[in-house]
Amino acid sequence: MEHLKIVASARQIPSRQVTNDELSTMMDTNDEWIHSRTGIHQRNVVVTENTSDLATKVAEKLLEQTGTTAESIDFIIVSTMSPDALSPSTAAIVQGAIGANQAFAFDLSAACSGLVYGLSVATSLLTRYRRGIVIGAEVLSKLVDWHDRTTAVLFGDGAAGVMIERTSDAIGLAGEELRTFGDKGGNLVAGQFGNSNPFSGEISSLDPYFHQNGREVYNFATREVPEALESALKKAKVAADDVDFYLLHQANARIVSSIAKRFGQPIDKFPMNMGINGNTSAASIGILLDELREAGIIHPGQTIAFVGFGGGLTVGAQIWKI
Amino acid sequence: MEHLKIVASARQIPSRQVTNDELSTMMDTNDEWIHSRTGIHQRNVVVTENTSDLATKVAEKLLEQTGTTAESIDFIIVSTMSPDALSPSTAAIVQGAIGANQAFAFDLSAACSGLVYGLSVATSLLTRYRRGIVIGAEVLSKLVDWHDRTTAVLFGDGAAGVMIERTSDAIGLAGEELRTFGDKGGNLVAGQFGNSNPFSGEISSLDPYFHQNGREVYNFATREVPEALESALKKAKVAADDVDFYLLHQANARIVSSIAKRFGQPIDKFPMNMGINGNTSAASIGILLDELREAGIIHPGQTIAFVGFGGGLTVGAQIWKI
Ligand SMILES: CC(C)(COP(=O)(O)OP(=O)(O)OC[C@H]1O[C@@H](n2cnc3c(N)ncnc32)[C@H](O)[C@@H]1OP(=O)(O)O)[C@@H](O)C(=O)NCCC(=O)NCCS
Ligand SMILES: CC(C)(COP(=O)(O)OP(=O)(O)OC[C@H]1O[C@@H](n2cnc3c(N)ncnc32)[C@H](O)[C@@H]1OP(=O)(O)O)[C@@H](O)C(=O)NCCC(=O)NCCS
Repeated sequence: MEHLKIVASARQIPSRQVTNDELSTMMDTNDEWIHSRTGIHQRNVVVTENTSDLATKVAEKLLEQTGTTAESIDFIIVSTMSPDALSPSTAAIVQGAIGANQAFAFDLSAACSGLVYGLSVATSLLTRYRRGIVIGAEVLSKLVDWHDRTTAVLFGDGAAGVMIERTSDAIGLAGEELRTFGDKGGNLVAGQFGNSNPFSGEISSLDPYFHQNGREVYNFATREVPEALESALKKAKVAADDVDFYLLHQANARIVSSIAKRFGQPIDKFPMNMGINGNTSAASIGILLDELREAGIIHPGQTIAFVGFGGGLTVGAQIWKI
Repeated sequence: MEHLKIVASARQIPSRQVTNDELSTMMDTNDEWIHSRTGIHQRNVVVTENTSDLATKVAEKLLEQTGTTAESIDFIIVSTMSPDALSPSTAAIVQGAIGANQAFAFDLSAACSGLVYGLSVATSLLTRYRRGIVIGAEVLSKLVDWHDRTTAVLFGDGAAGVMIERTSDAIGLAGEELRTFGDKGGNLVAGQFGNSNPFSGEISSLDPYFHQNGREVYNFATREVPEALESALKKAKVAADDVDFYLLHQANARIVSSIAKRFGQPIDKFPMNMGINGNTSAASIGILLDELREAGIIHPGQTIAFVGFGGGLTVGAQIWKI
């Protein structure tokens, strides 16, 4: 086990709520179709903010809650598939904004598995560093073609993250299984930068928008997520029954239910909030974690599974003793 | 010291060479201006390839050289500021292309410090994993406004990387200093995704192109790179004289010379190849390393410094015993 303590969590949700009913005035869809297939009733969307604004708020809350100084942070990782820019990284903007002047910062791109992959990297960095911040932050609304009902109804904006430190206590990351399936990557694409320069004769094929083969992603998730979770449990030497809560990426309620059933676990061990947040990619697990910590439902002494899956295609499952 | 072995290096340079003279037929510039200020005579540019194509070639060469199977790779990191897409990650595409079916893969965004930051992450992951690939890969030509002489003359395309493993030998990463200066991030920007959705009333402010305050970046590099390098040397307990070669990010020959002078080190300890490659961002240090390993100039038994700097703004200095 890697001895680590998640000392704080925080989230930032933009205030503009967009219901399925509002979407149905903009495109040929309806609440019944969306909710029955995904569990989503509404999503939250930025009005003036970009990804770094949401992530900075999360970082500020983490500092405030813990009373730590920005100077004591060794690194900042922002997992995102919707950065402000390709340079500077969104993490660098956060670092500058909070004045974490001893920290190095970078973005990690693993789509909806971003928070889990980021926690794995942070776990490893903490063998040599002392204190880090890992944030999943997304403004997916800028990558959505709001005329495309097959993707526009799914995604939302938001950010959440944790502060994490080395500890001598017998808590931390008990086991993980991270997997990537790049041969299936074409099933969930966004933010494409095609080759384009005067020597190639190609005209720019910049395409910001989501394109998804929803059926393939659905089948992938229900097949590969249980495999990864089973392997993580085995590595952690933890029985499925002994996990208090399974925090799955909030893409789709049907996917979550099918995984609960597959493990023979009660559905209330699988909290869900996609109903009000939509799919916030790298932010989803952190938002859920922070809501449940705030409510006192998740607390020290428990065993928690984090499970991300999505673009790449990627999967990541971790078992944490918190 | 973290005990690690760089078991192989490889590079992939696109074949279309674009000289300063050719650029001067396209924009109001000339070889004398460019070369005297940057050391660059030409750069290489893709015709049909994208970033994942260059990175995949590097990964294939790493496997071929070492005779390792793709299945034995535990993780693949692609450091890039010019990914094929925001999803899937370029690393996922590489993972799929080479069939590294046990590996997890993600992109790391730290601009021109990307390879050094990637090596730091890999070093840490290798406390829990056994074998990884770290590639810096860039197709910057798709982010260049070929009508803007202040940036178009600087950048080039290319990719390079290493295979890295745990070892019991007394070699590896002896010390590092990574720093980020997000408050200065606006001095080197590319690939901006502005907030844009029907609820914000903003029209899309997608801008792929490089924008740079060259003078500020120059001043930053000559001020912060020596600081970071000095700190890395101190942490590694290595004297500047005892470093065999300093592999600096190949942005600009004047920056490299000024740092050599500052440390009182002979300039031939600071090999340069920006003359033929231009500034290839996260790829530059790896390309240089691979050229020098191939030529037998860099070989086991030596002490090497890797120093990246650029967008973020970021700096990273590492001292390796190879
Ligand atoms: C996206 C998803 C909900 C679609 O559900 P589905 O049952 O596969 O639906 P289909 O895509 O086959 O479409 C069924 C019909 O509904 C229509 N439809 C699609 N989107 C619609 C919408 N928003 N409103 C109304 N109708 C819609 C389709 O056009 C199709 O009509 P047709 O039968 O006349 O051609 C489902 O595939 C899914 O949940 N996939 C996983 C996606 C996911 O979670 N991705 C993120 C992972 S990180
Ligand atoms: C970019 C850089 C070479 C510019 O050199 P400089 O001496 O600062 O030049 P300036 O930007 O002040 O421009 C000087 C003049 O040359 C002109 N100029 C700019 N680009 C030119 C070009 N490609 N060809 C000819 N003239 C050019 C400018 O318009 C300006 O003209 P003016 O004096 O009539 O206004 C230099 O600032 C530099 O190396 N910066 C670091 C950049 C870097 O390495 N970035 C990547 C880090 S990862």
